Amino acid sequence: MHDSRHTAQEEVLSLLRHADGCISGEELSRRLGISRTAIWKHIKALRSHGYEIRAASGRGYQLVQVPDLLSPTEIQNGLHTRFIARNVYAFDQVDSTNHQAMLMGEEGAADGTVVIADAQSSGKGRLGRRWASPAGVNLYASIVLRPPIAPHRAPQLTFVSAVAVAQAINSFSGLDARVKWPNDILIDDCKVGGLLNEMSAESERVHSVVLGIGLNVNMTASQFPTDLRYPATSLFLSSGRKWPRAALARHLFEKLEQLYHQYLNEGFEPILQQWESLCCWQGRVVEVDRGTDRIRGRFAGLDQTGALLLDAGGTLEKIYSGDVRPSDDETG
Amino acid sequence: MHDSRHTAQEEVLSLLRHADGCISGEELSRRLGISRTAIWKHIKALRSHGYEIRAASGRGYQLVQVPDLLSPTEIQNGLHTRFIARNVYAFDQVDSTNHQAMLMGEEGAADGTVVIADAQSSGKGRLGRRWASPAGVNLYASIVLRPPIAPHRAPQLTFVSAVAVAQAINSFSGLDARVKWPNDILIDDCKVGGLLNEMSAESERVHSVVLGIGLNVNMTASQFPTDLRYPATSLFLSSGRKWPRAALARHLFEKLEQLYHQYLNEGFEPILQQWESLCCWQGRVVEVDRGTDRIRGRFAGLDQTGALLLDAGGTLEKIYSGDVRPSDDETG
Repeated sequence: MHDSRHTAQEEVLSLLRHADGCISGEELSRRLGISRTAIWKHIKALRSHGYEIRAASGRGYQLVQVPDLLSPTEIQNGLHTRFIARNVYAFDQVDSTNHQAMLMGEEGAADGTVVIADAQSSGKGRLGRRWASPAGVNLYASIVLRPPIAPHRAPQLTFVSAVAVAQAINSFSGLDARVKWPNDILIDDCKVGGLLNEMSAESERVHSVVLGIGLNVNMTASQFPTDLRYPATSLFLSSGRKWPRAALARHLFEKLEQLYHQYLNEGFEPILQQWESLCCWQGRVVEVDRGTDRIRGRFAGLDQTGALLLDAGGTLEKIYSGDVRPSDDETG
Repeated sequence: MHDSRHTAQEEVLSLLRHADGCISGEELSRRLGISRTAIWKHIKALRSHGYEIRAASGRGYQLVQVPDLLSPTEIQNGLHTRFIARNVYAFDQVDSTNHQAMLMGEEGAADGTVVIADAQSSGKGRLGRRWASPAGVNLYASIVLRPPIAPHRAPQLTFVSAVAVAQAINSFSGLDARVKWPNDILIDDCKVGGLLNEMSAESERVHSVVLGIGLNVNMTASQFPTDLRYPATSLFLSSGRKWPRAALARHLFEKLEQLYHQYLNEGFEPILQQWESLCCWQGRVVEVDRGTDRIRGRFAGLDQTGALLLDAGGTLEKIYSGDVRPSDDETG
């Protein structure tokens, strides 16, 4: 696991990154107050992590290419947030970023702490479902928030993160991501991302909320499980190109912070409006499987708690939990 | 920490407990398949924990008195529950039983797991307040539950535990304990116990609820902090006698399991009725300090979510969070 304290190696990287062209070993050595041998060891270590660093005799080192790493350094380089991802815990592999973030939340982690992983061994979806989490291709991130709200409002934050993810995808990639109730992100009716909002609370106040985000970024068709409940895609499969994960994560954390502030300052209404404008079912007839029964009706928005409203032949039905699909029969 | 697996020492204790008078070292040795020297070591260890064991030459050992220990053995001896306290983790001292129980809940502890401590170094009250937790005199217990309910219903469980604690005190000691909104237990208008209900949940379902119970059992006047918000008492101070903690805990867990089943089978209504019949403010005028303002009115019961209803001059006010006191001016 890497946390966000700065090591000498990260300082070398930072100097390379901000150098105007080359920077000499002598200057690196002088500016960091460590030996040329130590500098050389850090350069070697950075190369082993995938950083392409050219050494030109007499002129020094030049950073030519950075790898698609989800390290705190790569995520925080150029990050414009005030508190989200100011603490980043990055794992090569973890059981579930949400699980780790919930534990860190219980142990007092700072507001905005991010847990991120290159792979998850037990990635979690809602209702205890599995979230396919192969290594090196996707984004699995969980954000610890400490909102000053009553527990019954906490589920509203799922919609804050849904809007953040969809807007971040759209402005970053130019694709047309949409939101699906309660917690999916779709591109062309295929699932590209999912959200898992967990909270720890007492009756009168929230201790922490963990916003879990799973986003299929560069995943290829063969990396998907064969038993998916719902057709799935990735940004790569939908756009035909690979996307840098750290830059996307940064963009997403910035969007999330902005929408979270809007939520705290202006309430749920503006979030709801943005969510509805991104919603994939606007005006369509859908069918909801509630486990014990199925109900069909025209999508009629959300209520103030985030419950789904269905117009079922004139009666407005409120749905708190269920799986929604478009209904083939448009006469409902 | 002691957990509830049985050691040879606990088996020795169990045989002593169920012996009809004396039991010889030879028989203990034979029944447990260990040497007489080992038996003697266990007897010595039990004595060091406060068990009074008489050794009569030629007749063997006799258990004369058990100490007021909150060990799994003492709690589970004669416990009539199906799942509550079937797993007990007992600490001599812990930061907070609720904190440990929340962590165990996150890590998959079984439904009904109990965390109990002889002392707490950071005992928690509601809203981050402190709960005075000296060693050896009181009950500090947290129960992990996994109710199949939606998160917005979880606060109702505070009232299940409040009714359980008040009824357990009353049938165990003959005192007249009452409940005070939202989470206190009173005797003669002095606080004798408090409840802290915490939950871990996602938007559509509860993962675990931890019911924390702090009960002042044998605490003396000098053991109370001097800066209490509210006058306090203990069963000892209110009754003039000391009470065995393990037996009280057992009685409480049995009551709790019974009321929890009633809640799951019949819903919140019968719990609400029992709570209201135990309520200290029935029909009285009270003042609520909500932090930002104060509101005064006649106590008018609870709503379905457990919110306090106040009749403030004809208008029914709903209170979600606050500190309630009786109002001196009865004209409100």
